[in-house]
Amino acid sequence: MKENTTASSVLPVAPTRGRLRPLGLDEVRITGGFWARRRHVNATATLDHCRDWEERVGWTGNFKAAVEGRIQHDRRGREFADSDVYKLLEAMAWERGHPADPALEDTIAAAQEPDGYLNTAYGRPGQQPRYSDLEWGHELYCYGHLIQAGVAQARARGEAALAKTARRAADHVCAMFGKGGIESVCGHPVIETALVELARLTGEQRYLDQAALFIARRGQGTLADGEFGRAYYQDDIPVRDATVLRGHAVRALYLASGAVDVAVETGDVELLAAVVRQWETTVARRTYLTGGMGSHHRDESFGDDFVLPPDRAYSETCAGVASVMLSWRLLLATGEPRFADLAERTLFNVVAASPSEDGRSFFYANTLHRRRRGTVPPPDTDSPRAESSLRAPWFAVSCCPTNVARTLAVLPAYLATTDGSGIQLHQYADAEITTGGIALRVTTDYPYDGRVTIRIDRAPAHPWTLSLRVPAWAQGTETWLTAPDGSRRAVAPGTAEVTRVFRPGDEVRLELPVLARWLTPDPRIDAIRGTVAVQRGPLVYCAESTDLPGEQEVDAIRVDPSAAPEDGEDGSVAVVGEITAQPDAPWPYHPLDGARATGGDPTRIVLVPYHSWANRGPSTMRVWLPTLD
Amino acid sequence: MKENTTASSVLPVAPTRGRLRPLGLDEVRITGGFWARRRHVNATATLDHCRDWEERVGWTGNFKAAVEGRIQHDRRGREFADSDVYKLLEAMAWERGHPADPALEDTIAAAQEPDGYLNTAYGRPGQQPRYSDLEWGHELYCYGHLIQAGVAQARARGEAALAKTARRAADHVCAMFGKGGIESVCGHPVIETALVELARLTGEQRYLDQAALFIARRGQGTLADGEFGRAYYQDDIPVRDATVLRGHAVRALYLASGAVDVAVETGDVELLAAVVRQWETTVARRTYLTGGMGSHHRDESFGDDFVLPPDRAYSETCAGVASVMLSWRLLLATGEPRFADLAERTLFNVVAASPSEDGRSFFYANTLHRRRRGTVPPPDTDSPRAESSLRAPWFAVSCCPTNVARTLAVLPAYLATTDGSGIQLHQYADAEITTGGIALRVTTDYPYDGRVTIRIDRAPAHPWTLSLRVPAWAQGTETWLTAPDGSRRAVAPGTAEVTRVFRPGDEVRLELPVLARWLTPDPRIDAIRGTVAVQRGPLVYCAESTDLPGEQEVDAIRVDPSAAPEDGEDGSVAVVGEITAQPDAPWPYHPLDGARATGGDPTRIVLVPYHSWANRGPSTMRVWLPTLD
Repeated sequence: MKENTTASSVLPVAPTRGRLRPLGLDEVRITGGFWARRRHVNATATLDHCRDWEERVGWTGNFKAAVEGRIQHDRRGREFADSDVYKLLEAMAWERGHPADPALEDTIAAAQEPDGYLNTAYGRPGQQPRYSDLEWGHELYCYGHLIQAGVAQARARGEAALAKTARRAADHVCAMFGKGGIESVCGHPVIETALVELARLTGEQRYLDQAALFIARRGQGTLADGEFGRAYYQDDIPVRDATVLRGHAVRALYLASGAVDVAVETGDVELLAAVVRQWETTVARRTYLTGGMGSHHRDESFGDDFVLPPDRAYSETCAGVASVMLSWRLLLATGEPRFADLAERTLFNVVAASPSEDGRSFFYANTLHRRRRGTVPPPDTDSPRAESSLRAPWFAVSCCPTNVARTLAVLPAYLATTDGSGIQLHQYADAEITTGGIALRVTTDYPYDGRVTIRIDRAPAHPWTLSLRVPAWAQGTETWLTAPDGSRRAVAPGTAEVTRVFRPGDEVRLELPVLARWLTPDPRIDAIRGTVAVQRGPLVYCAESTDLPGEQEVDAIRVDPSAAPEDGEDGSVAVVGEITAQPDAPWPYHPLDGARATGGDPTRIVLVPYHSWANRGPSTMRVWLPTLD
Repeated sequence: MKENTTASSVLPVAPTRGRLRPLGLDEVRITGGFWARRRHVNATATLDHCRDWEERVGWTGNFKAAVEGRIQHDRRGREFADSDVYKLLEAMAWERGHPADPALEDTIAAAQEPDGYLNTAYGRPGQQPRYSDLEWGHELYCYGHLIQAGVAQARARGEAALAKTARRAADHVCAMFGKGGIESVCGHPVIETALVELARLTGEQRYLDQAALFIARRGQGTLADGEFGRAYYQDDIPVRDATVLRGHAVRALYLASGAVDVAVETGDVELLAAVVRQWETTVARRTYLTGGMGSHHRDESFGDDFVLPPDRAYSETCAGVASVMLSWRLLLATGEPRFADLAERTLFNVVAASPSEDGRSFFYANTLHRRRRGTVPPPDTDSPRAESSLRAPWFAVSCCPTNVARTLAVLPAYLATTDGSGIQLHQYADAEITTGGIALRVTTDYPYDGRVTIRIDRAPAHPWTLSLRVPAWAQGTETWLTAPDGSRRAVAPGTAEVTRVFRPGDEVRLELPVLARWLTPDPRIDAIRGTVAVQRGPLVYCAESTDLPGEQEVDAIRVDPSAAPEDGEDGSVAVVGEITAQPDAPWPYHPLDGARATGGDPTRIVLVPYHSWANRGPSTMRVWLPTLD
């Protein structure tokens, strides 16, 4: 892997080596379209919403209670509540326009103990002792988010306060969990990525060494073998020996991200290859059409290969965030477009699906099939995490809202990279990119329209290469690339390149085949046998009862896949099918020669983008539609 | 409902009213065949196996520790561990040939506190206070099993010791939870059925009143609204208002059983009708082909209507036991054969599936699809409850083994009933039945052969009616009944009757169409669309990798349902299909016009009874088989 010389420091992930160099938030600006709207809502509504809720449920207050010596009696929230305060501070740091919170940061610093320990749930008289429950205690997990927030603030705002607290915590972790210390790991990974980023920020090798130590220790059976088994926290198999992601999805993906970070910084090609192999198998066998990961509600975990029930999809929002984090790291390390493909799918169909249009309620789990219309969650009560049919304002375990917030805040950084030879565009949005003597402007209505125009505003006098990702979903259709000289050629999924001396005003045009297509699943995914789904560009579509006539429900739909889906209004898609409710029977299994349900009349059925569902009141919804016999 | 005058007292359920009167274990004897073998293994292996494990894991020792004042430090097992000691004592009481355990019973009595309170997990210094956690504490649940064990011992063995302890506990419950006492219920029902049975045993009205009070309180939102919601413990809707069973399956079924008991004893026709309605909807929409109930691992609960994934079937063994308990009560109350139909299905395909052939290991959950070959659980370690592909000797939560044991112990009582007009046969097995001047002998190889011969050995001189259940699974085929005079007629599913003055030596012959048939699911069960299953008589069949050539796995099977299944050797069935492993792909969703897997050659595939699977080493298994395109 070659070394990076980063021009910008405003970066969520800043590897010193790798195939591609990330661009900073000061180099890429999203100026309009799908993600600009999402980011505007995030900046103007979601951050304050999360802040208000963290006050209301007492999670910010925990730090004050710790300083005032009454935390033993007054602590609120679950054992990991501190982490959500940190995640919100991280999101606020990246979202430059938003004021930081110096008073809260001072309180957090004041709650830190002399040796650097910082957690409002442990260690004081009347509380559980420090590090007495590494399996479930989340102490190192909380440090991880503290460190990420501190790094974000140092990089994005040049502020030192939170970074100083974070560094003291990291020093404490190295002292306690370094060689000769506690020979264990945290039940919930995230400290690994955080320590590597702190090493990148500070240049301190020992943070990297500590992260590498945590990666190496994992999978040795250090943690207790609880009800969910050691695979739950990836302590069953060493990272470099595993062949697939397993156990709790968020933990697995955070750990894999940390392993990539360590592999990149230490030049550990074998470790990187191990994570790539795990990613490949996980994508091929354990990932929903939406990019969602995790099919077990019980332990929020991956299921076995091809166990991907749409109606019990857990597909946790945070697993989507973590999957984007992993894919981004793998893209930077390898330059391979398949990682950007998955990131795109996951951003549009998981991360974008979680928040409501107003940015004030969220899905924790992102099911692909909702059978019952739910009720509107009360606006001032937190909700169970995965049971409502509508987004909820907050959860008792509320990791997802702040995770979405920090992801949308750094989204521009995921659009493009550079290397010695030019600029690579990975995600398409109206944007302005300025780096290393090159300035360019992207104009598009993506993802609803596949035409992308890149206009060069400034360029060096020597030749360089503009690389464009051609998504894998374009396979089997026609994609065209027009160079500044007007020449037009077909390009295949992967990477399309234009190399030349660009002049200001030059335009490169990519025409992606954004048209609705039927998809059929691998026969090994038993749960969706006999069904098809519609994807249009990167967007997965769904039927929602709101769009059906009368009081019909989506489970009455059967579609005719011999009729091609057609583009409808406002980004919708129309398909042909029948809507016929099944008759009731006392027993739901019948001899094969028994009577079948009679069909209805062919009708036009409107599908909407999956990410937009449940914004129009209680509804039923399904992505995978049964076919007519 | 008319009044019963029970001739026998050796009865697990002894209603004073109802359409049918149960026969006692002294009136019905199973003499050979399927259930005789199971009962022999239960009596000679399972009871001692459970006893040994309860010693080994310290659950019996808890009572001694309580007596000796060291329970605060020495207690072992989960909060409900006492209940399994009681359940085993109940099984031992019914299984007459097995010695009881007076020493243990004395220790239990000694552990009881002066006011009747008895639980090794609560109430002493250093323990949680009594009744401080009704949601999860299981204190009333433990009393329920204590009372059932006491009643069993009094009825089956005429012994008073454990019944006395049970009665003191029941008096304590009435004092603490009666009118003016703690206005709440237990998170886990079972006290309701137990108190009614104690009222039936003792004639004491207050036990019945207390049970009725618990039923009436349920569904008022008394218990806390936890992570799983109040539906988890059926505290969301009053029993008489609910339309379907929901929440934790065992809890729901125990509660419904208690509601039937109360309804029968109090003549509450409305309450009985409410449970019948819940049973109907549950059977029509929330029950697996095996009779298994519960499709969520997370909270061991019923899923929404038609959410019945075979690969994530929880179908807890105890839910099967509880379903048989409920169906038996509804059969006694109403006389309708549909309740015996479900009991039969559940006994053969859930209760019989749990124990291994040697009776020393058990399934806790009874999946309908196993995708990975597992490993052999260590013989001397308890196991997680639902993750192994092979039966395990014991579980950390080990409710199922003792529940199977007590069910097999009372199984003869489920075979037949009487009423004013004759004898009703509900389940078929080699058996001798002697009651009220009638003696008859049933001879059959059921369930592998459908011919059942009933020979009358003794009969009164006046006419009476022999009623035979014709199972619903016989619908659409031919069933024949031959009367003692040699006349032969076709009979339909439901009840077939012969009324006459029987003479010793008279024979009635039923010919049930036990032949393998393809079944197809209701299209609303998304998880098994495009698949078929084989049922033969009451037995559900499955493909097991053990029977496939080479190292093939069951997920490579596709069957041809246009070819009728054929009877094979040793109770197996042969079907025609292909065995073709799918090729790997980097992404498991393809455009509809993409390449399909090519087919293999038609081949003969052997299926075995579902209850017998996983007795020949690690394997993969599936009940629902995808069809060829």
